[in-house]
Amino acid sequence: MKTLTVHLADRSYPIYIGSDLLSRPDLLQPLTDNRQVMIVSNETVAPLYIEAVMSVLGASKVESTVLPDGEQYKTLAIWNTIFDALLKARFDRGCIVLALGGGVVGDMAGFAAACYQRGVDFIQVPTTLLAQVDSSVGGKTGVNHELGKNMIGAFYQPQCVIADTKVLATLDDRQLRAGIAEIIKYGLIRDDEFYSWLEDNMQALLSRDSEALAFAIERSCLNKAAIVAQDEREGGVRALLNLGHTFGHAIETGMGYGNWLHGEAVAAGMCMAADLSCRLQRLDDTSLRRCIGLIGRAGLPTHGPSQLSTDRMYELMAIDKKVQDGRIRLVLLDAIGSAYIDGDYDPSLLHETLSAMRE
Amino acid sequence: MKTLTVHLADRSYPIYIGSDLLSRPDLLQPLTDNRQVMIVSNETVAPLYIEAVMSVLGASKVESTVLPDGEQYKTLAIWNTIFDALLKARFDRGCIVLALGGGVVGDMAGFAAACYQRGVDFIQVPTTLLAQVDSSVGGKTGVNHELGKNMIGAFYQPQCVIADTKVLATLDDRQLRAGIAEIIKYGLIRDDEFYSWLEDNMQALLSRDSEALAFAIERSCLNKAAIVAQDEREGGVRALLNLGHTFGHAIETGMGYGNWLHGEAVAAGMCMAADLSCRLQRLDDTSLRRCIGLIGRAGLPTHGPSQLSTDRMYELMAIDKKVQDGRIRLVLLDAIGSAYIDGDYDPSLLHETLSAMRE
Repeated sequence: MKTLTVHLADRSYPIYIGSDLLSRPDLLQPLTDNRQVMIVSNETVAPLYIEAVMSVLGASKVESTVLPDGEQYKTLAIWNTIFDALLKARFDRGCIVLALGGGVVGDMAGFAAACYQRGVDFIQVPTTLLAQVDSSVGGKTGVNHELGKNMIGAFYQPQCVIADTKVLATLDDRQLRAGIAEIIKYGLIRDDEFYSWLEDNMQALLSRDSEALAFAIERSCLNKAAIVAQDEREGGVRALLNLGHTFGHAIETGMGYGNWLHGEAVAAGMCMAADLSCRLQRLDDTSLRRCIGLIGRAGLPTHGPSQLSTDRMYELMAIDKKVQDGRIRLVLLDAIGSAYIDGDYDPSLLHETLSAMRE
Repeated sequence: MKTLTVHLADRSYPIYIGSDLLSRPDLLQPLTDNRQVMIVSNETVAPLYIEAVMSVLGASKVESTVLPDGEQYKTLAIWNTIFDALLKARFDRGCIVLALGGGVVGDMAGFAAACYQRGVDFIQVPTTLLAQVDSSVGGKTGVNHELGKNMIGAFYQPQCVIADTKVLATLDDRQLRAGIAEIIKYGLIRDDEFYSWLEDNMQALLSRDSEALAFAIERSCLNKAAIVAQDEREGGVRALLNLGHTFGHAIETGMGYGNWLHGEAVAAGMCMAADLSCRLQRLDDTSLRRCIGLIGRAGLPTHGPSQLSTDRMYELMAIDKKVQDGRIRLVLLDAIGSAYIDGDYDPSLLHETLSAMRE
């Protein structure tokens, strides 16, 4: 087992990475022993793992909330069902919320922990590759609004994160690839050595080689933890983690939540960001080809959906959180392994990218 | 004008108290100049003051959300309408939310500011006496759940608070008295000198003498600010501010939100707390009579509603946030001006109090 620490002053916490961690009482029990524990999971994950987790908690009382599975359920109304369960169980301020599931479960459970009685403790047990390398690190929690993704939420750090590679065996291929999209992102924005490793080892990841997965998760978490430690509330460098996300959120919103997976939308978005960087003469053609090439080899979309017009994409992008003073600020690339933020480009080039990068 | 500062490390903020402050651009404009401002108000307050506030902002864009008036509307569904307005106006992370109204508006607007895009700036302009002396100080924000009051929320501090005594002229008598209930509370829990002043000046407060009101607001805010500075997140001494609140929340929930005003329920709850303190032989009879006497002279209820049985009151109290390990921890009194917390009393005495203190 590997242990990383996310350094955040008085709210630092460990991430445990390894195989078969869920069955180990020594990781969870120090936090859950003799406490009220609310497990928040979804209907796909709960039948597979909830009993194993319950058996190692040593809690004074365990209850669970099983949410419907999918990004389209990341709403205030479904979020409220977590409070229904907490209040029906009469859980007090000393309780702990444990998220067992993918990014949607983690975001909703973490946001519920942030707001229940104005804040209770929280543990993340991410069960998808995407959640293990992305949403479980950095404390972003929240729900979607019909007018925009992740518009309602909080920065809220867990007490610990447990990333068990064994659970990835039950993940479907599409979910696995969606996680690989975020892994590729770390290489693109700040780790060219890791990007080269990914080019050499993509087949091992796709065939779920456990050593390759553990390495990729650890390296991704290290990259993300380093950024979050510098900038917890996204005032500066943390924004680089949004490579592909403004494009991607527009795709997700425009197609209806749940139709494109988050990682799929980000994959296409990263190709769009690389394309625009190239049009702005900041990124060379070879790097653009490497970017589109690796994302394609991962079985991920490299272009946006034909159903969304260029104008509709632009309109959806303009409502994203990264807009400041009406300008769409984007994360763009200088090179493989080097990203920057730009809100001052020629908008007609963005329109060219949106048009060229449609399926 | 008087200026108090609430000291909270990097989130300290000023409270301005005085007459006719809303028309002064020098207080708001330094915070709102050239920014997107969302005014959140209610249908009672907006027609009276929203134009005056808008005229001094100097904002780049002003929008407003007018909520229905009343505690029964402090729900997730109504809260979401603030996000509807923010997103329709395409307000970004640099926007500021301004609460113009009573405690309900402040709680909902503050909680929306805490969660919109994971946190934007916030100004409190409380327009009821209750909000000026209570909810505008200390950063508690949130909404109710049908199973309990203020169960969903955040600690979130405003950039400043403007308590204009001139707006109290339009407050109805029942709302004025509800505010006086919280003022009496500060005397009871930690300021016997102020309590004596209230006994001598109750008539002046009820007749809205502006000097008496300004003194009472300032003294109340000073008391609350001192407590909050010691204990922002209610780990210890801040809990004393809940005198009468566990009883009061049970009354509010049991009677349906909006039927008893918060201050009315707290008034009856403080009499119950004093009664129980007396049964526990911690408070003498004279002090109990002074407590019930002053609350009665303020035109506030001294007993709980006859519609709620003793058993129902107990059940409702057991779901409150202040319950730890199944015991109902209550704020009780040693003397006028001295409160303590107790979770280890004989429960049969609590039942005696609930039975004796019903109308």
